[in-house]
Amino acid sequence: MIEPYTTLMDRYKDLYLLGSTGSILAWDMETKMPPKGIALRSEQLALLQKTLHHMLTDPENGRLIKQAADHPDLTPLQRRNLHLANKEYQEATCLPEELVVDTARQTALTIDAWKKAKAAKDYPAFRPYLEKIYELKLRAGELLMEPKGSDTPHDALIDVSDPGVTAHQLTRLFDEMKSGLIPLIRKCVDSDSQPDTGFLKRKIPIDTQRKITDALAQAIGYDITSPQAGGRIDETEHPFTTGYYDDVRVTTHYHEDKFDSNIFAILHEGGHALYEQNLPREWIYQPVGTACSSGLHESQSRFIENIVGRSPEFWTSFYPKLREITGDALADVTPELFVHAVNLVKPSKIRIEADELTYGLHIIIRFEIERDLFAGKTTVDELPQIWNDKYASYLGVEIEDDSEGVMQDTHWAGGAFGTFQSYALGNIYGGMMLEKLNADLPDWRSQLSKGSLNEVKAWLKENVHRRGNLYDAPELIKKITGKTLTVTPFIEYLETKYSKFYSL
Amino acid sequence: MIEPYTTLMDRYKDLYLLGSTGSILAWDMETKMPPKGIALRSEQLALLQKTLHHMLTDPENGRLIKQAADHPDLTPLQRRNLHLANKEYQEATCLPEELVVDTARQTALTIDAWKKAKAAKDYPAFRPYLEKIYELKLRAGELLMEPKGSDTPHDALIDVSDPGVTAHQLTRLFDEMKSGLIPLIRKCVDSDSQPDTGFLKRKIPIDTQRKITDALAQAIGYDITSPQAGGRIDETEHPFTTGYYDDVRVTTHYHEDKFDSNIFAILHEGGHALYEQNLPREWIYQPVGTACSSGLHESQSRFIENIVGRSPEFWTSFYPKLREITGDALADVTPELFVHAVNLVKPSKIRIEADELTYGLHIIIRFEIERDLFAGKTTVDELPQIWNDKYASYLGVEIEDDSEGVMQDTHWAGGAFGTFQSYALGNIYGGMMLEKLNADLPDWRSQLSKGSLNEVKAWLKENVHRRGNLYDAPELIKKITGKTLTVTPFIEYLETKYSKFYSL
Repeated sequence: MIEPYTTLMDRYKDLYLLGSTGSILAWDMETKMPPKGIALRSEQLALLQKTLHHMLTDPENGRLIKQAADHPDLTPLQRRNLHLANKEYQEATCLPEELVVDTARQTALTIDAWKKAKAAKDYPAFRPYLEKIYELKLRAGELLMEPKGSDTPHDALIDVSDPGVTAHQLTRLFDEMKSGLIPLIRKCVDSDSQPDTGFLKRKIPIDTQRKITDALAQAIGYDITSPQAGGRIDETEHPFTTGYYDDVRVTTHYHEDKFDSNIFAILHEGGHALYEQNLPREWIYQPVGTACSSGLHESQSRFIENIVGRSPEFWTSFYPKLREITGDALADVTPELFVHAVNLVKPSKIRIEADELTYGLHIIIRFEIERDLFAGKTTVDELPQIWNDKYASYLGVEIEDDSEGVMQDTHWAGGAFGTFQSYALGNIYGGMMLEKLNADLPDWRSQLSKGSLNEVKAWLKENVHRRGNLYDAPELIKKITGKTLTVTPFIEYLETKYSKFYSL
Repeated sequence: MIEPYTTLMDRYKDLYLLGSTGSILAWDMETKMPPKGIALRSEQLALLQKTLHHMLTDPENGRLIKQAADHPDLTPLQRRNLHLANKEYQEATCLPEELVVDTARQTALTIDAWKKAKAAKDYPAFRPYLEKIYELKLRAGELLMEPKGSDTPHDALIDVSDPGVTAHQLTRLFDEMKSGLIPLIRKCVDSDSQPDTGFLKRKIPIDTQRKITDALAQAIGYDITSPQAGGRIDETEHPFTTGYYDDVRVTTHYHEDKFDSNIFAILHEGGHALYEQNLPREWIYQPVGTACSSGLHESQSRFIENIVGRSPEFWTSFYPKLREITGDALADVTPELFVHAVNLVKPSKIRIEADELTYGLHIIIRFEIERDLFAGKTTVDELPQIWNDKYASYLGVEIEDDSEGVMQDTHWAGGAFGTFQSYALGNIYGGMMLEKLNADLPDWRSQLSKGSLNEVKAWLKENVHRRGNLYDAPELIKKITGKTLTVTPFIEYLETKYSKFYSL
């Protein structure tokens, strides 16, 4: 029995219990709460946040972490728990309360200004607010540098979402990614083999779409119906996943004339949910019993959404079911046309509408802008021009006003600097996992075309999910694949896949 | 500014926020939670309970209450808040932790023994467990006597649910009630005017019943659909109401061949919900901003369920809607027959299946047994015989085994001594309110038959709901009616109503 260690873990149990309580309240707010309840709910959530912060920043935690770390007999798992606890403690305590309060206030103001400026297509009205929130996050990054051992404020912020990853690494990876993506996108766009996607706008009643949801959940083994179910699916405007271990819930959205939107929302969120549900049971309530990073989480959602869910093999098995559920609606659409249509490559202005191939460029643009901003190579004033230039250069699209340009996302207004990289990292991690999966289970695609995802899921569980937060993502990827981070497998996967669709 | 008072009220705000957080988690557990989530949920709720208890029993609260009470300039409302805070503080702190822990453990054991003994119809197997939980509650009652100023342990326990009410008073009231109910029930049973109730077993599909639910919610003004709605209706095996101010939720249950079960569940729980929603907004997060007592709460649910919801006038307006929703199912059932059928008087063994008239006797039997047990006039060993004798004498029914007798309810097994009286008090309070309503709004029944419940609801809001917890129930009733507690109005209401149905 290591006294300070077990005391600390007992405290962490309470933290996870209260944190997961907050998740349920937040989920309820989005899905079930009577509209009038919003003021009360805000107060309940604020109290939970305050209490959690109080528990997390208790100086006793700092003492316990230090005392526990001195013990000579710690197992590697215990050391990892202490490392993660310390990381969280440092992140929560190294910022002076004044900065935290100022940031919270400025975030609200900047988001409000962003909404108005976006509606008015008026970047100059937004700029001073964005500058203020940027200055505050820069200051936070500066203060986080020392406890994190980061070289720059930007690295320190990136390390919060994606521990062990730096802007320098990202630049190398994203340059590699760009040089793979840009020519491939160009070839797809220029190809004569363009799919007719008009049928994706056919009206499919919401009740019918709900049946598609149930069938998809069953197809990927996200259990929402059995007496042992640990999940459920509800509706919100923006789909999300939330929960902890045996209670992990996803949401989706239904648009009568965009039935594919629900399909890929379910597959994406289902990928997140399977990760959370498969975390090792014996690590519940411990820091190691959590997902490894934002980027790793995104690798799991994209693996199920794209690598599995947009593959011809998945639709070989699932398309007959989809046709059965939708009656005559897709009677004239061949499986081949369907799969090509949901893999249409079409450069666009809006990130959240981007396809698998162009998506990464949207992320890289944001990362590069952030990086240069934090490095002092550009100013908040110059962002619209830089944004528009990059969109023209990388994606070949012309931004007509800043509402569909630099002001399209809420992230920076909300102070979320150092977070966008996770989306593209998810693709890179996923590509590397796929390469290893191909080696370990050469017939996984043929199994998938017969309707079985079991071995793929077992592989993800064994290699990714069951390792929880035992390693930072780059180290985890090395454990899984034996390789350091590389974009090559992702690009190769895309080239193979899209060469077929577009007869390249 | 009265410093200790405002500090105390700030603490109370956190208590109500955390308490209402627990309510949402408990609601979610019953209605939405994936089944696998139960272990995690139990831990979340246990932590909230522990935290709430810790906040409530903090000795600083006791000091603040004392300091605040010394201030000469307190308003009556502030004095009431201090009185209620002190009551809660005393109830939470006067029991030694050992007793609390023993009681929690014994409750779990006794409920488990009750389930098994009930299934096996084996009271002797249950008896020792019941004795233990009774001894623990007796000890709690003894310890609560002093802070509550109660004369007996039983009175102290009653005072927790129904402050200001004693066993002595209840004996007087319930004797009066018995002598009114027993002959009236006999006359109804002996009458030749018996309704045919067979149509109540006709199958009404659940989806149709959901439409009845929505129409009933609209009829009583329990808003579940508008953008300002503060309520919602979900499904559970046992209907209940939970929530706080702007987020008050009810549940119902659907049985295809008992469609009236849902109807009266909605009306009953709707009555509870309207009370909670109408508490004075300016008293939110204060002790006065809560319902007055269990008995008073029950008066509101029964007012809407029985006095309104089983009245001929309500069905004059609502029956056409019911027929419209149910298609041909009730085409041959006259409104008169329908109303009589849902007011069938039929003595039975099981409390939760009892009608409006016989229900009170089920409660009185339990109260009398409890009272004599706590007074040492009877023993746990003798309960089955006493139970069966009283059922034969008051209700004229013969209990064949203890599973349908003394072991039918879970309450005593769960240690809920001193709580049954609330149900019958609810009827008494409701009768007195009705008498005053008749005087204040002589044409409320004719309004109701035209489909308007507005003035009745406004009356209840003004006289009951908006007074929150400003007075103990007997004092509140005096404020409303000018009278001390009396059963006469309730019995007169029943005699008038049932004389018509049964041509007495």
